[in-house]
Amino acid sequence: MSINIIRIAERWYVEKSARTGTLIDTTARTTAELIADRAAIDLAVAGEEADLPTGGLQAPVTAPCRVVAQMTNFVSHIKDSGLDPETVPLTFFRKTSHSISGPTDDIVKPSHVRFLDYEVEVGLVIGKDLPVGTTLTQEDIADHVAALVVTNDVSARDLQLPKTQFFEAKSYPTFTPVGPRLVVLEPGDWERFEDLRLQLWVNGEVRQDAVVADDMLYKPLEALQGLARFQPLSTGDLVLTGTPGGTALKAPPKPVEIIGALLPPAVKWKAFFKAQARNTSYLADGDLVEIHVATPDGKLDLGRQRTTVRHERATAR
Amino acid sequence: MSINIIRIAERWYVEKSARTGTLIDTTARTTAELIADRAAIDLAVAGEEADLPTGGLQAPVTAPCRVVAQMTNFVSHIKDSGLDPETVPLTFFRKTSHSISGPTDDIVKPSHVRFLDYEVEVGLVIGKDLPVGTTLTQEDIADHVAALVVTNDVSARDLQLPKTQFFEAKSYPTFTPVGPRLVVLEPGDWERFEDLRLQLWVNGEVRQDAVVADDMLYKPLEALQGLARFQPLSTGDLVLTGTPGGTALKAPPKPVEIIGALLPPAVKWKAFFKAQARNTSYLADGDLVEIHVATPDGKLDLGRQRTTVRHERATAR
Repeated sequence: MSINIIRIAERWYVEKSARTGTLIDTTARTTAELIADRAAIDLAVAGEEADLPTGGLQAPVTAPCRVVAQMTNFVSHIKDSGLDPETVPLTFFRKTSHSISGPTDDIVKPSHVRFLDYEVEVGLVIGKDLPVGTTLTQEDIADHVAALVVTNDVSARDLQLPKTQFFEAKSYPTFTPVGPRLVVLEPGDWERFEDLRLQLWVNGEVRQDAVVADDMLYKPLEALQGLARFQPLSTGDLVLTGTPGGTALKAPPKPVEIIGALLPPAVKWKAFFKAQARNTSYLADGDLVEIHVATPDGKLDLGRQRTTVRHERATAR
Repeated sequence: MSINIIRIAERWYVEKSARTGTLIDTTARTTAELIADRAAIDLAVAGEEADLPTGGLQAPVTAPCRVVAQMTNFVSHIKDSGLDPETVPLTFFRKTSHSISGPTDDIVKPSHVRFLDYEVEVGLVIGKDLPVGTTLTQEDIADHVAALVVTNDVSARDLQLPKTQFFEAKSYPTFTPVGPRLVVLEPGDWERFEDLRLQLWVNGEVRQDAVVADDMLYKPLEALQGLARFQPLSTGDLVLTGTPGGTALKAPPKPVEIIGALLPPAVKWKAFFKAQARNTSYLADGDLVEIHVATPDGKLDLGRQRTTVRHERATAR
């Protein structure tokens, strides 16, 4: 049974119920330090529970850390993107950890961004350094993944597509809301990973809903094996494992896409974004985004993230 | 007049001539710490010169640090890539700093990589923290860029193109040789940036040769202004500013490219790499790669990098 940890006002608590928990007696300021202070976590698990402070929830993954994300990793999302799951390679990109925000913080759309999209994802929190060249087996993975978190890989589509590299479009401040919970895995928990169901609602309307086992292409073992060839990972780093279908962005029908490929890029993107202006699924000012990731029996429950979208106004000069 | 610093066996030296210099009396172990210890650098500049140790040159930029790179940023390279300079946006991607290697270290092609390519680039070494939201003017830039280095943005083209995200293909160990010199800029030096000429030879044959002023699309001021919108930079971080034309990879002629766009990705890449197998410009085992970046008058001289390519053999299991 996992240990659910939340962070409020720079302090860490083991959750015991919706309103109660136990303060972890630790000097840890970062997620890496907390994971290393296992004795303090265990003491809190065994300790007396009390009412939790209300409000002020912070991301349970602290920056700076490495944030590595998998590209198009759910079959449903790959099809939404007009790609073929048979030919999509295992692919990573980086997000800046400065984009991490708390599970109730606003998602802020910068004034120069037009099309803001959501992507519910499960994040793996690294629990043991993974140097380049490490050979990783199914038996090792529970050692290297200390915890799971729910995240939203917020994406500025009008930057992402013409630039082709995803780094900037997914790295603005508040573009990686994390939490509420750091779900620290106990023996047997890892085996439930594929039972996780990812759900996302906008203003109460379900937009994304998928189960890992049915839909995820490159599972965490393959992902970490791939990363271990070139990217060292350290305790506290965050690996995002991709999003299912249902994002606001969807590829145009095949004939339109093929014609688009023949056009000069400027013409193609102008036509594409002109069409997207009629797509009402992008995140509007004031939209409420809710995310929940859990196994159906609730044995693993990454918690519910509730964020509000705020459109930054262009400042007059 | 710039101060040229090299690093040998974890110690830093101010270069005074090809064979002589002065040890910097500092406890700095990282590039960031060295930049902060300006008093020690100044003492070495004024100090007595002696023979430098021979061999053992290390990269003058130490890892870990952020490595951010600009995509297709020279008009000649953009044309080589089959793109239109008028429509290429300012675009960044990340490389892992674990890919940094010394200026005489071998470049190692992993056994699963087929097409290894070179890219001479100028690297900006950040000298003053640049938080997100900083407004940067031409007057500030010399404050924020402490030094210049020469780099090779080594690229595994057969990974880069099908994956579309450049992160992995440019992040394997030894894929970012840096140095020999950390060229610390003095007043007036920044104004010479656009006079820098970038040259790269393979086995003595010139492959790349361009001057910044003639060819670079998004100059450092625009690049750092763009990064300051989403990516904090710290002292010692490295920003690569793009490569000119002449890489081994060149886009196929337009009609072939347009037909390629109509094919399923697996078929397109198979055909493309079949054709690339006849391209003898990719880096072969034992190739000597030499790089030099300097102003024509030698007032700024980033030094000469000499690396040898080594193809890793697949290990039998």
